[in-house]
Amino acid sequence: MIVALAGGVGGAKLARGLAEIAGTDLSVIVNTGDDFDHFGLRICPDLDTVTYTLAGKANPVTGWGLDGETWSFMAQIKALGGEDWFQLGDRDLAIHVLRSQWLGRGASLTDVTAKITAALGVKAAVLPMSDAPVRTRVQTASGLLDFQDYFVRLKCDVSITGLRFDGAAEAGPTEAVEHALDDAEMMIFCPSNPFVSIDPILAITDIHRRLKATRVPRVAVSPIIGGKAVKGPAAKMMAELGYQVSSLTVAEKYRGLIDGMVIDVVDGDLEGDIRALGMAVKTTRTLMVNAEDSARLAAETVEFARKLGGR
Amino acid sequence: MIVALAGGVGGAKLARGLAEIAGTDLSVIVNTGDDFDHFGLRICPDLDTVTYTLAGKANPVTGWGLDGETWSFMAQIKALGGEDWFQLGDRDLAIHVLRSQWLGRGASLTDVTAKITAALGVKAAVLPMSDAPVRTRVQTASGLLDFQDYFVRLKCDVSITGLRFDGAAEAGPTEAVEHALDDAEMMIFCPSNPFVSIDPILAITDIHRRLKATRVPRVAVSPIIGGKAVKGPAAKMMAELGYQVSSLTVAEKYRGLIDGMVIDVVDGDLEGDIRALGMAVKTTRTLMVNAEDSARLAAETVEFARKLGGR
Repeated sequence: MIVALAGGVGGAKLARGLAEIAGTDLSVIVNTGDDFDHFGLRICPDLDTVTYTLAGKANPVTGWGLDGETWSFMAQIKALGGEDWFQLGDRDLAIHVLRSQWLGRGASLTDVTAKITAALGVKAAVLPMSDAPVRTRVQTASGLLDFQDYFVRLKCDVSITGLRFDGAAEAGPTEAVEHALDDAEMMIFCPSNPFVSIDPILAITDIHRRLKATRVPRVAVSPIIGGKAVKGPAAKMMAELGYQVSSLTVAEKYRGLIDGMVIDVVDGDLEGDIRALGMAVKTTRTLMVNAEDSARLAAETVEFARKLGGR
Repeated sequence: MIVALAGGVGGAKLARGLAEIAGTDLSVIVNTGDDFDHFGLRICPDLDTVTYTLAGKANPVTGWGLDGETWSFMAQIKALGGEDWFQLGDRDLAIHVLRSQWLGRGASLTDVTAKITAALGVKAAVLPMSDAPVRTRVQTASGLLDFQDYFVRLKCDVSITGLRFDGAAEAGPTEAVEHALDDAEMMIFCPSNPFVSIDPILAITDIHRRLKATRVPRVAVSPIIGGKAVKGPAAKMMAELGYQVSSLTVAEKYRGLIDGMVIDVVDGDLEGDIRALGMAVKTTRTLMVNAEDSARLAAETVEFARKLGGR
């Protein structure tokens, strides 16, 4: 059993490669700190990106949303004077509506996600990190912002001073997450944003504890390539929070929780500094443009972890 | 000010003709007994049919829903294993989502409807009969059914023994409805189903009282032509409830509330029997196939009502 920790687009891409290797023997523990309620619907951006990507149905251009989506709903929302800052495609909407309906009837987010992934033919287990609400909030000089306000409405165009994961202290992992972590042969930190995709997962005390205590190899794939994030605000956040924008910063952040880092060949000069933190390093091409890239990077990451297994 | 009472498709068609004559001086009091909650959304079929028709955006084939609609949402709902017995178009969905959001924030159904109709360029006032919930329930030999279960899910394919309008006794009319009735120069019963479109409106005690007491002319356009309903289960219900399927039955049903009936030329033989009930009769072509038909029938109905005005 491979266990992966993932947020949105970048994490989903590696998860897709891992799914090709592991089939049903993959559990992806997904960040739910981005989840929010909009139009009375529960929106879970990272769960959906992972689900759509594993189902082979993600929009290949954006990385999120469904391929071949239509936008009649949003056009009419706009015509009727509704809020149109958060784009909801016509087909994508079905997942939010059904999830909200099923949650309203008492199903857990884990059960709802299992039902949706099964319907979409996803073999891997897509596991919300918790069934309890955890909400990422962004601290700025002018106050606290809900994550989607920051991320989508403001397009990250404000400087952050910190992050909060409201509810994380009280939120336990689900049984499914506990079992996945107990059964794991290796744990892989996908190349997701360390601050807003992986940190919320690590903020769940019991997940953090199990990751720290496990004897199986733990490997992180860096989301930073040559001082830049492939997608999203990871690099911008890193700089604003006073860190060097570098895979070394990622390694330092995960220190004590991982045994090895996969970094891009362009960052080969960091190898020594990262090894000095007490972890192994593998350099390879980490940019995932297509499914083949994902498959190759996943295979190399799994092989790297296997080699570390004997520690 | 013309006040019309209307349900769905047939009523909406006449209302569109009345709107051409009256412009902003038309208030359409609309049945909300068909309203229901589905996927956590408030669906108001008759309000929406009237709104879309007055906006010139109704699907000309079905009479309900939006012209040029797309169906991505429903296709995905089905793929995910959701309920697909009630069709919700992608653009149509926007009205339900916004209405539910605005109602959830404390707006009244009247306010929400005003906002939506304004956005769609509707000049007439589209008035829910009440802001309080009234729910039509269908009595059958095998028990009580919610209206949409009967109407859409079972396609009316069950014999009815009676109808109930739960909540009607407690539901008052809105202020907007009261003002419209107070200011009316004439009141027109659109050719909607008397049992499930007009009766729920009449079940609101104060509306019934004002209709009965008014001194302005009140005219009904029969939805029955040659012993058949143009659309929907009106004729079937009439037969199952033990009535003759005829415009005479409609006239008897509205007796005491109307001063005149508009019936189709094919039902000219009923004229004497309807006059014997103490009301005037106008015969004309009442089938509305296109906007021209609606405009002509509306003009003739208004003229007929004006002539009765001197009683």
